[in-house]
Amino acid sequence: MAILLNSNIVTPTSKNVLEAMEPFLDKAIDLNVTTKESQKALKAYKEAIDKIYRSINAKDEDTIVLTSSTNEATSQLFLSVYLKYILTGRKNSIIISQRASIDEIRAARFLESQGCRVHRIPVTVDGTIDIEIFREYVNSKTALVSIALVDDESGVIQPIEEIASICKFADAPLYVNAKDAMGRIPIDMQRDEVSYLSFCSDNIEGPKDIAALYIRDKSQEIMPIIFGQDSEQASLRAMPKDIAKVIGFGKAVEEIVDSLDFEVEDIRELRDEFEQELLKIDNSYSLAPWALRVPTISIMAFEGVHSSMLIDKLAQKDIVAYSFSKFNTRNFERVSLVEIAALNNSLKHCTIGFSLASYTTKEQLDEALKVIKESISEIREISACNKEQK
Amino acid sequence: MAILLNSNIVTPTSKNVLEAMEPFLDKAIDLNVTTKESQKALKAYKEAIDKIYRSINAKDEDTIVLTSSTNEATSQLFLSVYLKYILTGRKNSIIISQRASIDEIRAARFLESQGCRVHRIPVTVDGTIDIEIFREYVNSKTALVSIALVDDESGVIQPIEEIASICKFADAPLYVNAKDAMGRIPIDMQRDEVSYLSFCSDNIEGPKDIAALYIRDKSQEIMPIIFGQDSEQASLRAMPKDIAKVIGFGKAVEEIVDSLDFEVEDIRELRDEFEQELLKIDNSYSLAPWALRVPTISIMAFEGVHSSMLIDKLAQKDIVAYSFSKFNTRNFERVSLVEIAALNNSLKHCTIGFSLASYTTKEQLDEALKVIKESISEIREISACNKEQK
Repeated sequence: MAILLNSNIVTPTSKNVLEAMEPFLDKAIDLNVTTKESQKALKAYKEAIDKIYRSINAKDEDTIVLTSSTNEATSQLFLSVYLKYILTGRKNSIIISQRASIDEIRAARFLESQGCRVHRIPVTVDGTIDIEIFREYVNSKTALVSIALVDDESGVIQPIEEIASICKFADAPLYVNAKDAMGRIPIDMQRDEVSYLSFCSDNIEGPKDIAALYIRDKSQEIMPIIFGQDSEQASLRAMPKDIAKVIGFGKAVEEIVDSLDFEVEDIRELRDEFEQELLKIDNSYSLAPWALRVPTISIMAFEGVHSSMLIDKLAQKDIVAYSFSKFNTRNFERVSLVEIAALNNSLKHCTIGFSLASYTTKEQLDEALKVIKESISEIREISACNKEQK
Repeated sequence: MAILLNSNIVTPTSKNVLEAMEPFLDKAIDLNVTTKESQKALKAYKEAIDKIYRSINAKDEDTIVLTSSTNEATSQLFLSVYLKYILTGRKNSIIISQRASIDEIRAARFLESQGCRVHRIPVTVDGTIDIEIFREYVNSKTALVSIALVDDESGVIQPIEEIASICKFADAPLYVNAKDAMGRIPIDMQRDEVSYLSFCSDNIEGPKDIAALYIRDKSQEIMPIIFGQDSEQASLRAMPKDIAKVIGFGKAVEEIVDSLDFEVEDIRELRDEFEQELLKIDNSYSLAPWALRVPTISIMAFEGVHSSMLIDKLAQKDIVAYSFSKFNTRNFERVSLVEIAALNNSLKHCTIGFSLASYTTKEQLDEALKVIKESISEIREISACNKEQK
């Protein structure tokens, strides 16, 4: 059995989720025709939608659009504000963070190529966006502010209440990608005054390639980017046909939100202990501040240990960690965690993450720790050898 | 067991497809990290991509983008040509058919609202587009011609070779939605000179909500509408994470294309026999010409029998037929099959379809026929009673 320490990237589908999907997995369900089977499916489908609403404490009058990914949700918002606001001259800019993810960066680049101003807000040493600079740029000409609630690499949590109140004051719509927050910290649409929010099923032990885009009340000017038959929720996207997947997504959000009450604290304890041990390794650094992050992630840098080498060595022993270096090398410009922490620039290639989930055990972490230590020693020995030979 | 006569809308997932997906269904697979499991998944994934290419005889240098539906493929093309051609003034119009489907109609309406001219080509009495009128409208200012290879309701096959050669001559890119052609008639990208083609997994006994967009060579000016991490095939869409689904799609296209060699002829025989029996019912009409359609579909109208009533009655006995009346009533303007066939307009609400697949048996059709006859009699009796009472 593999030891999976990449729960922010992808998780296995839980037994309970698969069980909920199973009765519908091989079925041909046309919700437009009322058979016994389609009624059963429709009931389960509606319950799932309800669970998705409840997972973020959305109101019935709010809209939730089912999408194939948070990438799709992000793209729909960026293209919508471009077509409805930028192109018409009603607004002239958007705001993203210097830690924006690849979907935001690519969507923003497209908008920029079409004449939209894109402001990239820097983050401070603790990884949160610089509120003072943010305040300078946001105004009524801002078509969209896009900020992830939780950093996908470091797990740092943004001060979303403060950001939201600034946006509200400036009359600028705020989009929050909450993918890496779901099931890690509470999300509450009655507390957080965001205009749009997305989350997905990929990293919460649900089926892959299904996500949700929350739209506060029905008045927002969002347009479909996937045209087709309406769903019951909204005429903002062609309705999905994979009913089993919607049901699985509903089950997954229900379970992960329930686990927030106690399981997450167990994960935090495991993570803290694990990180303390990692920090005992010579020349190791934690790249996220202690207080401001989700309980599931530990993001580290080991001096002289290239993350891709370490990832490969761990993978050979069936231990899966994550690194964003592959994305970074493909024109993915965002400020690195090493820069933010003002550490030596050589550590940039040494950044590796470990993210835990409900299925992570103490035994797995002990085993992982052992292999990590061995691998780091091996890599450092080889590189010392190489230096000597030179 | 339900009798499914709606294979053009949705099919169950076949046992072989589910078996191919099964090893990956609950797995957390990150193709960026090389474990034993991810290597196994990557191998199966690449084989699946290969099967998808082979299913339409695409060349390696052509691009196939995996999308969540043909709706998405259609939307991506319409939005791309809008942003790249219409908005820049390089081209000024698009062409769709009067039998365009809901995704095309909604996407075209959006383009029209932005100042793009939309030409709707009528169809002749045999259900194919009027080539002479088409020829008048297509020219080098045409940003896109969008024609379904097979009509989703009637199964009528368009003369795609002729359409393609006209488009080529006029230097207008041709997009063909081949969703209802896949596995019903051969599709060959070396024979058919189309620029873009889409098909999906929903109606070929594959998993739901996965589809493919074929793009001839790499030079076409299509842009992503879902931004994110590139897949190996193309930087035109965020890569899907549901590896199992891609593998299932590959298996499904392989099996359905193989079945073209002989099974499809068995289905044609069953369909023809079934339709002959349906035509023996008093005041019944076949709405598609005999020669020009796929072997799986029978589209009928029974005078005085509202399709939604018949659909419901059949559904009560677990027999699933299809009707487009639900779509039609929601501002879905397209010329009806009844108009095309120049039949009495009252038949418009009486159009009902039956579509067969590899899993359809003679016994099922005999049973369906019995229930259809009974239901039609009952409905006609009730309506006769109602008339008497009045």
